[in-house]
Amino acid sequence: MSVDERREQLIAVALELFSRRPPEEVSIDDIAAAAGASRPLVYHYFPGKQALYEESLRRAGRELSARFEEPMEGPLSERLLRVMGRYLDFVQSHGPGFAALLRGGSVAASAGTSAVIDDVRRAAQEQILAHLAIPSPSPGLRLTVRAWIANAEITSLEWLVERSVPLEELQLHLVQEFVAALTLTAAREPALAAELGSFFADEHPDGPTGRLVRDLAGLFAVPGILDAVTALAAGTTETAEGSEVTGASGASEDPEPAGASEPSERSEPSGAAPE
Amino acid sequence: MSVDERREQLIAVALELFSRRPPEEVSIDDIAAAAGASRPLVYHYFPGKQALYEESLRRAGRELSARFEEPMEGPLSERLLRVMGRYLDFVQSHGPGFAALLRGGSVAASAGTSAVIDDVRRAAQEQILAHLAIPSPSPGLRLTVRAWIANAEITSLEWLVERSVPLEELQLHLVQEFVAALTLTAAREPALAAELGSFFADEHPDGPTGRLVRDLAGLFAVPGILDAVTALAAGTTETAEGSEVTGASGASEDPEPAGASEPSERSEPSGAAPE
Repeated sequence: MSVDERREQLIAVALELFSRRPPEEVSIDDIAAAAGASRPLVYHYFPGKQALYEESLRRAGRELSARFEEPMEGPLSERLLRVMGRYLDFVQSHGPGFAALLRGGSVAASAGTSAVIDDVRRAAQEQILAHLAIPSPSPGLRLTVRAWIANAEITSLEWLVERSVPLEELQLHLVQEFVAALTLTAAREPALAAELGSFFADEHPDGPTGRLVRDLAGLFAVPGILDAVTALAAGTTETAEGSEVTGASGASEDPEPAGASEPSERSEPSGAAPE
Repeated sequence: MSVDERREQLIAVALELFSRRPPEEVSIDDIAAAAGASRPLVYHYFPGKQALYEESLRRAGRELSARFEEPMEGPLSERLLRVMGRYLDFVQSHGPGFAALLRGGSVAASAGTSAVIDDVRRAAQEQILAHLAIPSPSPGLRLTVRAWIANAEITSLEWLVERSVPLEELQLHLVQEFVAALTLTAAREPALAAELGSFFADEHPDGPTGRLVRDLAGLFAVPGILDAVTALAAGTTETAEGSEVTGASGASEDPEPAGASEPSERSEPSGAAPE
């Protein structure tokens, strides 16, 4: 084995071990044994376990980032569904060992490891923005994408512990949550709203977005929801009328102005009433 | 000053300093000077900087958890709005120093610090579930709440760096994202859907939910969106016909069920126009 080959082999073996167990449960001896090498030989290539850990994390980061690559073809939600399939597959095979690191409680966390994690998050964000194909994404949209990535991370880490839903459901839900987050952002940003029509027009009825739309439409058949939402959309409710949005007022049956324990501050969005 | 008072004072002073600067930029000398104490006196109470850091983080965690307390009165979204006001106020005043810790790249991270952070996240999750007042929350709902907390964390940390939107907007958006996440979860879970009507019925038109409903309704006035969404709701599109949901198609060109993660086959069904 050449020097380079041996180095690569040691990293591959270390990645395999570090993917299954937390770093404190993997020793240099374990790595040497799995690689069919001696302990001094491992030390010849790497100064210690932390260096080997960081190198294997770097390798994992590159593998994961490569899974984000997806052709710019077809409905957006289906592209994201495929990416999430590959991502969740990665989480299943490498997640157990790196969970503590991502949760922030790993003994092996360092400036080096967080740089790798940040790079992966950035790669995910840039891929998604590239697929959205919006020339200059607003700060709000960038934040939406970043927050959704955090959602995907934490959701899949929690899933590793509980496995409370089938993996395919998790995959679908994450994609649908992205569609919802995108729609919410568009509701605040007219420039993005102008793009949203063509996004929906490209979607298929049996894809994640089509299924989401029908699931949400199904909610309106549940008693009470349609009436309540219609009232909110009209800007009035049966229990409390008189809001500054409609300007419609009258004798409210509710002595307290619409819905606040702190009447005066309530309607400011900054309603951060100190207790 | 009594022994207890001195200890409390040192923690308070340390918290003040650690809130503004990363731990590596705060020395025991800084803390001693700010407390009007000698360096040996600080060491008399705490074995070192890490211990003092963890103690001040614990104090910060308790302060933050206390801000989640909110009376069980009024529309849910307005309760959450008030909590988020207090949370974001905390982020502004303590966040700069603890940002690296929360991002996972702090030199001071340890098992002790992650236990504190986990406790705060758990307190937030339990508070929200208590306000939702659903007897036994499903795993899916618990996951939704946990993921939204991650969203709030990452969004506010990113906000600290960029401050790209006014804080009041961030506060409102986070609450509206929670309402959206809850609605999405209800769309998948009939038991939760049954509760959603009374949630919406309690909301006020000028509150976060009312404003969200109208913003979303406003999207339908944007060219193209209503048509595309209506087609998806009906289970057909102009460009792609045939889904197993409607059963409307004869020969579907797409043999794969929706939601599979195999890249190539599934993305070119039904002659849909790729962008």
